[in-house]
Amino acid sequence: MGGDHGPPVVIPAVVRAIAALPEDVRFLLHGDEAVLAAALAKHRGAAARVDIRHAERVIAMDEKPAQALRRGKGTSMWNAVEAIREGEAGAAVSSGNTGAMVAISKLILRMTGDLERPALVTSIPTARSVTTFLDVGANIDCDAERLVEFAIMGEAYHRAAHGISKPTVGLLNVGSEEMKGHEEVREANRILREGKIDLDYRGFVEGDDITQGGVDVIVTDGFTGNVALKAMEGAAGFMIAELRSAFTSGLMATLGYMMARPALRKFRERLSPTPAAPLLGLNGIVVKCHGGASDRDFAMAIRLAADLARSDFSAEIERNMRRLPDALAEPAPAPTTESPLAQAPDIGGSAGAAQGASE
Amino acid sequence: MGGDHGPPVVIPAVVRAIAALPEDVRFLLHGDEAVLAAALAKHRGAAARVDIRHAERVIAMDEKPAQALRRGKGTSMWNAVEAIREGEAGAAVSSGNTGAMVAISKLILRMTGDLERPALVTSIPTARSVTTFLDVGANIDCDAERLVEFAIMGEAYHRAAHGISKPTVGLLNVGSEEMKGHEEVREANRILREGKIDLDYRGFVEGDDITQGGVDVIVTDGFTGNVALKAMEGAAGFMIAELRSAFTSGLMATLGYMMARPALRKFRERLSPTPAAPLLGLNGIVVKCHGGASDRDFAMAIRLAADLARSDFSAEIERNMRRLPDALAEPAPAPTTESPLAQAPDIGGSAGAAQGASE
Repeated sequence: MGGDHGPPVVIPAVVRAIAALPEDVRFLLHGDEAVLAAALAKHRGAAARVDIRHAERVIAMDEKPAQALRRGKGTSMWNAVEAIREGEAGAAVSSGNTGAMVAISKLILRMTGDLERPALVTSIPTARSVTTFLDVGANIDCDAERLVEFAIMGEAYHRAAHGISKPTVGLLNVGSEEMKGHEEVREANRILREGKIDLDYRGFVEGDDITQGGVDVIVTDGFTGNVALKAMEGAAGFMIAELRSAFTSGLMATLGYMMARPALRKFRERLSPTPAAPLLGLNGIVVKCHGGASDRDFAMAIRLAADLARSDFSAEIERNMRRLPDALAEPAPAPTTESPLAQAPDIGGSAGAAQGASE
Repeated sequence: MGGDHGPPVVIPAVVRAIAALPEDVRFLLHGDEAVLAAALAKHRGAAARVDIRHAERVIAMDEKPAQALRRGKGTSMWNAVEAIREGEAGAAVSSGNTGAMVAISKLILRMTGDLERPALVTSIPTARSVTTFLDVGANIDCDAERLVEFAIMGEAYHRAAHGISKPTVGLLNVGSEEMKGHEEVREANRILREGKIDLDYRGFVEGDDITQGGVDVIVTDGFTGNVALKAMEGAAGFMIAELRSAFTSGLMATLGYMMARPALRKFRERLSPTPAAPLLGLNGIVVKCHGGASDRDFAMAIRLAADLARSDFSAEIERNMRRLPDALAEPAPAPTTESPLAQAPDIGGSAGAAQGASE
């Protein structure tokens, strides 16, 4: 029922997903039975693989997470997540209210092992393949332990989603030197460097590494991750608009465009962002789909959820989590006093300034 | 003497700048006299507008700011900044060590009025014009007052650099609702909303607004700003590489490219990032140029410095700074306890989750 469009997008998405997924993948649709049944009736054949579960209420898009927790019981979102806990469903997909979804999922499913907070992960195309990037918005304030947890979750996710046996991991910072950045990233770097957690950790990476693909997984806090993701989406959108106007700036350019059109279409497809962000760290697969998603986007989110449900991604995370308390028990180095003067990284370049604090 | 290349880039850049700037703009070149004189000798005519000031030493690119402060006296960078204080120069330009430059400039020039920390500002092309974006790396940790200072500096800078009488200002966040984001941005938003500072403040903006141009000035902390800037540069570089490979993917595409080439060249020029970042908030104009800058880039940095030196940008900042203590004196609202569950913004979309904390 969620997202900007509700059933008019979700039902056609389910129909698309049914066509793409094996026959043993079945669907529970939670929401207003009359609305869902009417929408489904237009798609012959789909009904055989779909059960409708009536829910009286829905979580509004502007509802606050605390409200959603108090009043959410019996809503379509609540029921969809509860179906995972009850073993009826292998995964839940929604394009509804993100904050409510995070809160409800955490309450009903609980976190895997000792993990404290879920993270939203996304996949960003690079020249080589894709970067797994997290957190893109579930956690605004993150200490070092949260960043280490994200590294564990992101690595397990990348392995499950892309079949790479030993993904490489980097920590997002303003420079690659050890003494760069704020205390949280430096402390997380120290823990990951120690190697008590079984990760192929490569140290600090910078903003431009997100699309360069030098490491498979890039970890950051939800504030920075959300801003960086939207900044890149904005830059890509701006470039495509500029490109379009360049191609219509004269007869030759327009002719050139016509000739290059099939190649350009592939270029655009390759750059289009993934519309789905799985919520990692829960005892169950929950995938958040973009609020304004099209039926094509939502079908992609469903396929991703189905793939994850059949992978051993949750087991992967648990295996690594067992090493976490040990790694965090290590004594921290003596605190350093930080000079406000000593925090200037280079702009745009690779060379950068050091933090005087580390002397 | 600084940057990745030193005089082989700086001298040709000065020659370019001389050709572009009015005759009353003169140059002091600080560094090894023999090296500079030899490089300058190749460019007839330039010598008449250039004085060489010998400096025995240089600041190394990997020197830490605290080291640079202790041992910097008499280096080329130190002397260039000192010349501003002595009234010999109207501005300093360097592509050397950023952290050292921030530290030395703050020590020698001191901050304007009650400003506490300098900020690095950059200009990002948008569909409408340009966004003034700061801080892009001078301050890793920023409290609400620093963000408010950046708003004042950025607005004055935008007016001076682009001749817009009343630039609009936005604060970078993970959503546009009042209760979104971490405490620092919410508190800065509260101060700016009160209107005691004479700014056309428009509230929170998101990462994609940086290239959308809905507001003229976008303010953030140096960590987020640096990551977002490099992420956008990386995304743009990736897209251009992909575009090139799309255009060479077949005969028709290649022919199309040839026909559209002049238009595409303009497209690329329009997107190339500004190579210079002025350091705002000091009693004097200091412009940081990209370490790997070309002579064309460095010449642009010189022209920007000359433009700023002749603008009334410093007076603009001071005028607004006078209102700052008044604005900050306002009692803050009672602190709220924050739920870790309540911090999930939407990903990629415009709709988002609220912070339960604000209830």
